[in-house]
Amino acid sequence: MAESAEYLLTNAIVLSMDEELNQYDPGAVAISGETILAVGPDREVRQSFTAKEIVDCEGNVVMPGLINAHTHVPMTLLRGLADDLRLDVWLMGYMMPVEREFVSPEFVRLGTQMACVELIRNGVTCFADMYYFEEQVAQATSEAGLRAICSQTVLKFPTPDAQSYEESLAAAREFIQRWKDHPLIVPSVAPHSPYTCTEDILRATAELAVEYDIPLHTHLAETESEVENSRAENGMPVIPYAKKNNLFDAKVLAAHCVHIDEGEMHTLHHHSAGVAHCPSSNLKLASGAAPVSKMLELGLNVGIGTDGPASNNDLDMFEEIRLAALLAKGITGDPTTVPAATALSMATRLGARAMYMDDLIGTLDPGKRADLIIVDISTLHNTPRFHRDEMNVYSQLVYSAKSTDVKSVMVNGRWLMRDQVLTTLDHADLILQANEYAHRIDAFLVEREKSVLSKLVAIGGAMEGESFEVQVKVRIPDPNPVLAAIKGPGLEILYSRHYHEYDVYFMFADPTQGILRYREDEYIDENDEITNVRYRLTMIGPTREAQYESDVLLSRSRYIAPATHSLRFYREYFDPSKEVVIEKHRLRWRVLFQGTEFYINLDRVDEPQLGHFLEVKSRTWSRRDAEHKALVARDLMEYLSDSSQDTLTQDYFEIVTKA
Amino acid sequence: MAESAEYLLTNAIVLSMDEELNQYDPGAVAISGETILAVGPDREVRQSFTAKEIVDCEGNVVMPGLINAHTHVPMTLLRGLADDLRLDVWLMGYMMPVEREFVSPEFVRLGTQMACVELIRNGVTCFADMYYFEEQVAQATSEAGLRAICSQTVLKFPTPDAQSYEESLAAAREFIQRWKDHPLIVPSVAPHSPYTCTEDILRATAELAVEYDIPLHTHLAETESEVENSRAENGMPVIPYAKKNNLFDAKVLAAHCVHIDEGEMHTLHHHSAGVAHCPSSNLKLASGAAPVSKMLELGLNVGIGTDGPASNNDLDMFEEIRLAALLAKGITGDPTTVPAATALSMATRLGARAMYMDDLIGTLDPGKRADLIIVDISTLHNTPRFHRDEMNVYSQLVYSAKSTDVKSVMVNGRWLMRDQVLTTLDHADLILQANEYAHRIDAFLVEREKSVLSKLVAIGGAMEGESFEVQVKVRIPDPNPVLAAIKGPGLEILYSRHYHEYDVYFMFADPTQGILRYREDEYIDENDEITNVRYRLTMIGPTREAQYESDVLLSRSRYIAPATHSLRFYREYFDPSKEVVIEKHRLRWRVLFQGTEFYINLDRVDEPQLGHFLEVKSRTWSRRDAEHKALVARDLMEYLSDSSQDTLTQDYFEIVTKA
Repeated sequence: MAESAEYLLTNAIVLSMDEELNQYDPGAVAISGETILAVGPDREVRQSFTAKEIVDCEGNVVMPGLINAHTHVPMTLLRGLADDLRLDVWLMGYMMPVEREFVSPEFVRLGTQMACVELIRNGVTCFADMYYFEEQVAQATSEAGLRAICSQTVLKFPTPDAQSYEESLAAAREFIQRWKDHPLIVPSVAPHSPYTCTEDILRATAELAVEYDIPLHTHLAETESEVENSRAENGMPVIPYAKKNNLFDAKVLAAHCVHIDEGEMHTLHHHSAGVAHCPSSNLKLASGAAPVSKMLELGLNVGIGTDGPASNNDLDMFEEIRLAALLAKGITGDPTTVPAATALSMATRLGARAMYMDDLIGTLDPGKRADLIIVDISTLHNTPRFHRDEMNVYSQLVYSAKSTDVKSVMVNGRWLMRDQVLTTLDHADLILQANEYAHRIDAFLVEREKSVLSKLVAIGGAMEGESFEVQVKVRIPDPNPVLAAIKGPGLEILYSRHYHEYDVYFMFADPTQGILRYREDEYIDENDEITNVRYRLTMIGPTREAQYESDVLLSRSRYIAPATHSLRFYREYFDPSKEVVIEKHRLRWRVLFQGTEFYINLDRVDEPQLGHFLEVKSRTWSRRDAEHKALVARDLMEYLSDSSQDTLTQDYFEIVTKA
Repeated sequence: MAESAEYLLTNAIVLSMDEELNQYDPGAVAISGETILAVGPDREVRQSFTAKEIVDCEGNVVMPGLINAHTHVPMTLLRGLADDLRLDVWLMGYMMPVEREFVSPEFVRLGTQMACVELIRNGVTCFADMYYFEEQVAQATSEAGLRAICSQTVLKFPTPDAQSYEESLAAAREFIQRWKDHPLIVPSVAPHSPYTCTEDILRATAELAVEYDIPLHTHLAETESEVENSRAENGMPVIPYAKKNNLFDAKVLAAHCVHIDEGEMHTLHHHSAGVAHCPSSNLKLASGAAPVSKMLELGLNVGIGTDGPASNNDLDMFEEIRLAALLAKGITGDPTTVPAATALSMATRLGARAMYMDDLIGTLDPGKRADLIIVDISTLHNTPRFHRDEMNVYSQLVYSAKSTDVKSVMVNGRWLMRDQVLTTLDHADLILQANEYAHRIDAFLVEREKSVLSKLVAIGGAMEGESFEVQVKVRIPDPNPVLAAIKGPGLEILYSRHYHEYDVYFMFADPTQGILRYREDEYIDENDEITNVRYRLTMIGPTREAQYESDVLLSRSRYIAPATHSLRFYREYFDPSKEVVIEKHRLRWRVLFQGTEFYINLDRVDEPQLGHFLEVKSRTWSRRDAEHKALVARDLMEYLSDSSQDTLTQDYFEIVTKA
């Protein structure tokens, strides 16, 4: 007597995507409730089951839904915002400032809904997300009917949803408690990456994940510089450092793993960590190509992820699977590596294992959840179909098929799309709302990009410096008399320094934007050795007030920030119209002269060869104080130098640009 | 007074793709006959022109049609036939044998029609083809209304359409004469590549191309081994060798250029050669990644090609443009290289230049041909749209848009697709015909793959050897007495040789398939130096007749071929279930004994260490002759060896496998 099912999908090319790559053509699948009852030859399954609805699949492929093993779905709203930029400029210059300004529960909900439409349309039934306000991701995803790991992000700096990491961690705990028994959502915690977390955060998040037996989602070894920095700061590369901080006590899902060696692969394998390979994002941000062939050879569970749509720029798993297959061949020089069936397994069975969900999904097997898709491979761009080799069908799906060939999508026994009609979401309204956000983000960035200063503020940390500057500067033929005078009885030396300074001045077409100076200060000790290097960025506004007698009294806005990024970063971010480089040795004294503090700079400008200069300088917020200091500065300059040289009112870059 | 046009495309985001990347939003394009009359701001163009039909583009993108700079369109019929194989196995093991069997004018016409449907649908308006029966490609393409360079292939070996290269060359000349004034087709000649042509062919095709002032289409420096072989055989890499043979006298369109150095790029640039970059194909066949960033920096005209659908596996230029942009970043480590606008320029303006057609196509400019496409970038997977930066629209098209977003396609002022409805081709019937071909090719390959022998015959050159083998073989403790006997008076030595032989035996699960032996014979001269190496492949059928008295008389089929491919090739192509390796030194004499010719082999088997063996051998087609020789062989063996060892009936691989 035939068992009864809810759906019978018949007349299909059924790809189980199980370890043996069993396939049935024609095959059928029986489904009841949220569960697969049977998978097998069409005739056999039809004889064993009756069903409320028999779906004739018309020779299309029925296979497990695709699994997107790493993404940031709300970033769909930032798709195409800023491209073809270096990772740090993209992240620190654009993504993070915009996120600080715009990311809210509403933003996250809308971005997630947009993403769910795109994911369903291209045959994804489960994804691993990592973002802020993950509560909204979970809510919108479950409403859309998709399955997901939703990972609440924890970082060492403030995030759009938390002022401190303790706050994020507490929020993550509550989030996990609320969702841990949901049929579609697996809550998770995401220490963003070792380099954006403290050791405390790594340990605490691992503990939390162990406590609730949930996956821990993170980024590991994405770029070469991340690994280099880890070696420099932690004395070891990224994977051992993560291990040292107990990360692998938890069920880790590690995105990227581009720059890991074989020993680190063994560590990942030993701890059964899952890896999410994101080839488009890794290429687009020029991070490199992960050693996927080797990882698979060692038995690691490597899934495929699109990464966020701001670095891809879409959620198209068909593109991603194809690229995973092609790229592995290109970088190993072996066209037989990651064949089509393996690439497709990564996006199904292996992805499920990487996400610790292979008891539920990843293959079409009786007892697993009914997460499956129907794909039409009879379109012209998929034609012809060869039958000689059972592998041909995987070739078609990986190398020829497009996401738009997905006809129908079922998750947990529920249709989310049938014959390309969505059942849970309306996309027209979402598009309107998304473009409204884009309009506001455009306005924000246009406003910011109007001024170099606002761009500086946007990347954080700039402090306004004192704005009145007393400066007396003369060119001197010989520094020795000055050195003798400084050591003389007329002034008291508070301290002295020797710097080797490399200054790069960025100038802009609009001179009212001021000048940006990137300074690298090497401290030289008494043994002529470099003991420290300091990087500072100074935004020098245009001068508002000019010379005052033979001294100079300037007033200008002046913003100072530690230069935490590279010169190259600032060049690409600020995009100056001109650059001037000045290299000099500076002997600097802080002195007390007539009861007033001054800096004396004795400079030798080597690049370009301008010769020796003597500067007496002081800065203050007060005009009255500045006027007093200007008088004393003149006396100090007379004390130091009997030369009859004219005083100079210009900064070095001005001397150079006017020469 | 407004000028009159045939079409006015209005309310569009018009991307000219000219050198300045001029864009108009909203913009319009006026078209009359085959020609673009005007491109500009919507208001301006509408005021200047009246039109028979005003097309409201509803805010979609209007841009030049995409140019596929290198493909083999008829190979659409071989899409997905054999994947994840090494280039030589794929080409020599599958593509060429199937092409030899199936490629005909009908095949080429059908494949071209299939390709035209796919190309039109994904927004391609012009392509550069290279195949056999190019007459059919030109005919079918012009009927479909597409523009193309059609290149008739010339090779040093027989092709499906010619028995000799003289024949191909004559056909190419006639083909060029017939099509040289066609409005859509540019006929061309294609010496396939330097390694598949003789120097004569290279020179003759270059002359032909110069004579008719038509492009010369070829493959250059696709793989590393091609370059290595060129160095070994010609004393120089590929580009200088091509130059030496006058190739660059012609207007060269060179596909791939993966393995070229900066000097070679300068040569290409100096000769204004066009390059067709084919990233999918280069990755899929593990050829590598072309140095596109450097080529563009040097000012080379680099277009983008899909290559044939058998190595891609489609003709999707959107995928290819995206991959060109991503891959360049990944391999240079610079995420700012090949930005979106550059990638799109490669598929339009630069592609047209690479194909020497930039006077007609590649940009939207008044006076050029009306080859353009309408693309919808308002779909959800293209949302949101940022307007802050004019580059955002290129980002959308390159990183988010899909080929299925192409709505309408116009070539030479004629619509080939409007709102995704094709106007010149019916695809349903083409799919049926293509699957009929697939069915026949499947049958051909299934039949071939049934037997190791037919696979051997398919890759060419196997000759059946004499099938009766007389063999007397004994194990000997000491070779010296045998050596003395050979030099004795009882026989006449015709010649003697010393070989160092490496044999690899491939065995198959089904023993009736026989054994395949790959033998590397090093000839050792009297000074103990290797003077030559010979590679031979021998297919040894199962023995049909057994021992005859103490001698052995065997009958079996035996096919011998020079092993022109590598051991690795044969391993991947024949996929044996087991391998045995035997290494031995063989002293061999051809002798006359009792008026009968024999071979005497005195072997020392080193790997594995089996010791010394003495063989007396002869082969013949005649059973009677064999029976006679068997008797004489026994006498010869007695003369040579007084050992009481049993004669052995086994070949070495049998001794090893049975041990």
